[in-house]
Amino acid sequence: MPSRSVQLVLQYDGARFAGWQRQRDARTVQGALEDCLSRLCEEHIAVTGAGRTDAGVHALGQSAGVRVRDTWDPMELRRALNAILPDDLWVAAAHEMRDEFHARFSATSRAYRYLVGTDENAESPFRRRRELVWRRPLDRAALDTAALALAGRHCFRGFAVRGTAPAADNHICDVHEVSWRDREGGMVFAIRANRFLHHMVRFLVGTMLDIACGRKSAGTLRRLLEAEDNREVSAPAPAHALYLERVEYPLDLYLSN
Amino acid sequence: MPSRSVQLVLQYDGARFAGWQRQRDARTVQGALEDCLSRLCEEHIAVTGAGRTDAGVHALGQSAGVRVRDTWDPMELRRALNAILPDDLWVAAAHEMRDEFHARFSATSRAYRYLVGTDENAESPFRRRRELVWRRPLDRAALDTAALALAGRHCFRGFAVRGTAPAADNHICDVHEVSWRDREGGMVFAIRANRFLHHMVRFLVGTMLDIACGRKSAGTLRRLLEAEDNREVSAPAPAHALYLERVEYPLDLYLSN
Repeated sequence: MPSRSVQLVLQYDGARFAGWQRQRDARTVQGALEDCLSRLCEEHIAVTGAGRTDAGVHALGQSAGVRVRDTWDPMELRRALNAILPDDLWVAAAHEMRDEFHARFSATSRAYRYLVGTDENAESPFRRRRELVWRRPLDRAALDTAALALAGRHCFRGFAVRGTAPAADNHICDVHEVSWRDREGGMVFAIRANRFLHHMVRFLVGTMLDIACGRKSAGTLRRLLEAEDNREVSAPAPAHALYLERVEYPLDLYLSN
Repeated sequence: MPSRSVQLVLQYDGARFAGWQRQRDARTVQGALEDCLSRLCEEHIAVTGAGRTDAGVHALGQSAGVRVRDTWDPMELRRALNAILPDDLWVAAAHEMRDEFHARFSATSRAYRYLVGTDENAESPFRRRRELVWRRPLDRAALDTAALALAGRHCFRGFAVRGTAPAADNHICDVHEVSWRDREGGMVFAIRANRFLHHMVRFLVGTMLDIACGRKSAGTLRRLLEAEDNREVSAPAPAHALYLERVEYPLDLYLSN
């Protein structure tokens, strides 16, 4: 049966998902998507994600790859899926891709943002589940300095979960763009890189906030970027303020748009 | 016991409230606020709202008036309340007012906005509970014409709930500002007036959308503005996309800010 490679661009509210990756006894994004796709296609459909978001992390543009029968037009697949997906999961776009497309290995970059609310209404009903409420004064210049230090190629072993990855794992990431920007009610941390380690953005944000409020010294970040371990790293910042914003691929992998 | 008049500026997510007004068997904003205030002050505290929002309607700046013992500093009252209010209700500000302040009768204007989502991702998890998803083509110029027709002083009997108000009720409202504006993903209807009738904004939006998508003629709005009844009015637009944005008072009623 001829098949077709399709990229699904996904949005989800992470609050009620135990993360991306399918688990036997927990509600996950991959699980919900595979279940709905398989129901629709009347055969088991496996879904490959560009990356595994943690429990609670949101997505505005997660990317997933699926293979379906070529009778499925991507736009119709999107429509049919959105009609049956749970209300915290949404297919924002669907693209027909070349056969060699792989949601994870073909990706050239991933972009995340992290929302920090610093004004007195950050805890309001419309914001408390979307932003980190931050009450301590922050040294704004220290945040800029930290972001600058992250740009470029670095070993991020200091910002990786200890023990879970194989010892020989590659911790090198190329950070293409990174910044702290002011926004109404607070700040946003934006980072784009070729790849991210498990919990890496949350470790980075937690550490930078600790530096900017004086709980850690300014040198901590530099030392972690050169370290062989993560002993100096801060606790990861909470998941509910983190958003996977988009995943990028070489344009020639797209057959349609 | 000397008392103090305080204005509370409230934000709430209307989804789980059966509207503003206290009811014996339903969860309401006034009920939740009075219960928490009374607990805090160890006496029954009555709350007066600037207006009664319907079930499902949100507030970014509802206004409530309370009388508390003058040992309560407004800022401390706000902090203490926010510590015990349910997570969909929030005091954004608290101001000490002159004795003659009345949350409802002193208000000189109320401002509402209504969000309409027209792009293909209006149903996404982050928007579906906050905007009206609208799929039919809209005549943008017809919306502008309609908004223009609403500006100024009119009798809004045609946009009032029939039967519920006393026959002799006053249906005259002064509309100070009114517009449809484009925004990312759709449009927003904004209206500010000295007063609003029950369901009025939702009747107005429902009718304007019906006109702009061709379900009603352009003359409907004019006729309703001159009508003695609401027979031509459309169904009220859904509550979950309506926000009470702010309530304004003469500045000389404020003792503090």
